[in-house]
Amino acid sequence: MVPKTECVGIELSDRSYDIVIGTGLLDDGASLDKLPAATTALVVTNPAVSKLYAARTLALLQRKYRPVLLIELPDGEAYKDWTSLNLIFDRLLGAGCDRKTLIFALGGGVVGDIAGFSAACYMRGVPFVQIPTTLLAQVDSSVGGKTAINHPMGKNMIGAFYQPLRVIADLDTLDTLPERELSAGLAEVIKYGPIADDAFLHWIEANLDALLARDKAALAYAVKRSCEIKAWVVGQDERETGLRAILNFGHTFGHAIEAGLGYGEWLHGEAVGCGMVMAIDLSQRLGFVDAAYAERLTRLIERARLPIRGPALGAERYLELMRVDKKSEAGEIRFVVIEAPGRAVMRPAPDAMVRDVIAAHTA
Amino acid sequence: MVPKTECVGIELSDRSYDIVIGTGLLDDGASLDKLPAATTALVVTNPAVSKLYAARTLALLQRKYRPVLLIELPDGEAYKDWTSLNLIFDRLLGAGCDRKTLIFALGGGVVGDIAGFSAACYMRGVPFVQIPTTLLAQVDSSVGGKTAINHPMGKNMIGAFYQPLRVIADLDTLDTLPERELSAGLAEVIKYGPIADDAFLHWIEANLDALLARDKAALAYAVKRSCEIKAWVVGQDERETGLRAILNFGHTFGHAIEAGLGYGEWLHGEAVGCGMVMAIDLSQRLGFVDAAYAERLTRLIERARLPIRGPALGAERYLELMRVDKKSEAGEIRFVVIEAPGRAVMRPAPDAMVRDVIAAHTA
Repeated sequence: MVPKTECVGIELSDRSYDIVIGTGLLDDGASLDKLPAATTALVVTNPAVSKLYAARTLALLQRKYRPVLLIELPDGEAYKDWTSLNLIFDRLLGAGCDRKTLIFALGGGVVGDIAGFSAACYMRGVPFVQIPTTLLAQVDSSVGGKTAINHPMGKNMIGAFYQPLRVIADLDTLDTLPERELSAGLAEVIKYGPIADDAFLHWIEANLDALLARDKAALAYAVKRSCEIKAWVVGQDERETGLRAILNFGHTFGHAIEAGLGYGEWLHGEAVGCGMVMAIDLSQRLGFVDAAYAERLTRLIERARLPIRGPALGAERYLELMRVDKKSEAGEIRFVVIEAPGRAVMRPAPDAMVRDVIAAHTA
Repeated sequence: MVPKTECVGIELSDRSYDIVIGTGLLDDGASLDKLPAATTALVVTNPAVSKLYAARTLALLQRKYRPVLLIELPDGEAYKDWTSLNLIFDRLLGAGCDRKTLIFALGGGVVGDIAGFSAACYMRGVPFVQIPTTLLAQVDSSVGGKTAINHPMGKNMIGAFYQPLRVIADLDTLDTLPERELSAGLAEVIKYGPIADDAFLHWIEANLDALLARDKAALAYAVKRSCEIKAWVVGQDERETGLRAILNFGHTFGHAIEAGLGYGEWLHGEAVGCGMVMAIDLSQRLGFVDAAYAERLTRLIERARLPIRGPALGAERYLELMRVDKKSEAGEIRFVVIEAPGRAVMRPAPDAMVRDVIAAHTA
């Protein structure tokens, strides 16, 4: 059954916007309804996504904007840097784009992060729209307004909180997603269970096979519920001063894996999947959840075809990488731990305990 | 007479802040009252300002923060670029600075713009405080939250609207200001008369000699009234969607002069001074103000020791440079013109008329 179009509203006073979730959205002029009129639009994408969806996206945008420019950035987290960002600025300035130009991010999280940050900075801010084409981007990167590029000394270190005008999540684009990326997206879907909604975790356990088979109805519900939970968290804490940090469950270990291996070796979602295995073990060692719950979450991550053992970087290297995490304060690493099924909190942990966790879950 | 400390409040809901204006502020611990506690502070400055004021600023900050780091960026508009910005990020990351680190901008507009933009982007935003040491920065750059770096294709093209926690305007720092920079600052002071307050223009005419002699009472009033007017404008239009653009009186021509000569040849205020001469002539040709008013403003700019003739770049080059101005829309240049003494509006103008204005006021 093809689900009808769903809509999740993100309430942030004057920066509120809608996430439209459905099928056929890339061919439907209604996807652009009420977006501001502007002469020029720029689509930011990468070569792989461009080959699949640029023609349809350009046709859609040409109904409303002219000219519609396109820029392809090299693919992958390793290119989410100042050099790529500057390619966007060069293109915008070269084409004489003014501050009413709309920027459309067509692709996954990397494209969304860099296109969003370019929109935040170009002439001190131009409007932008996300068209996420990966499950990860649909459930995570396109919600909450985080944009950034990487610095050689840390991931997402340079960025801005900047909200899109709209997110257009066309589930049809998930048909062409490589299997590894589908699993990476499921890592973030699974995450919402332990941090906020135990019933959702049960639903994922029951529907994981349908999700892996890319059933549209199952995907529609997973994307919608994930966005609702993230919207609820972000709506209470737009600038990550407190609660919002729980969305980083699995990310402290995960970022260390990504940085330690070099960005792009593991997909972000793969690192988060493995990071959640480590973080739930830490939660258990800190006395919050029992072994059965930790085992249950670990099995689900494994069933989603995600790695559950981290690379052997050595515990000291993990600790060093985690200390520069943005959530650290005065050198103390703060972990998102599960206090009880569906409830997360931030906690420090003794280095020795963290070393034990790393030893238990690395190759 | 040494004036007592004045305070101008900038009301921007959750981003409101105070501009503290007075003498002896760099040696007064009260200047830091109510700023957030943080372990680390970073002072961003340039070699010339550092030599004069770094020791006192570090001593002040060490009362509250530890460690207090210092970074000197190369001086001048030509260095307000990504390379300098990245020196700040390298320093912050190298010292393990977290998202609670405070950044202090000690210097003029260039330091304020780049330090402010680094604060806006570092870990998606850390708090910052402006300590403007030039008249221009005290009356203009430190009010309104505009931060930016330059792009080879245009000035201030990459930036953010980001408000400081406080502005500490110590008038004593103006004692060491080179004469050219004092005059450049007066250009922005004078600007507030035609765009918003004819009585203030009369006051400046009557007190220009005292201002040029760096009389503290005169400077205190000029800084305070300038900040009040800018605060009133910015408070109504934080993100420059309408009214705020009037603050750019003289800036469209001025930016063309700066870009055409290469940034750093003329001081920003010098270019704005000359740009106001052109813009008031355009206002007259468009039928808004009479010749006597245009002459009156031009004479005041000249008395402030500012250039009133622009460089001979050629009219076409001026037009080309003005078309990439951020205020342009769809290639149409929009000028801030004086509708009547104390009132400004945005208007396009025929190219032929703009060419005549340029011809009349270039060497």
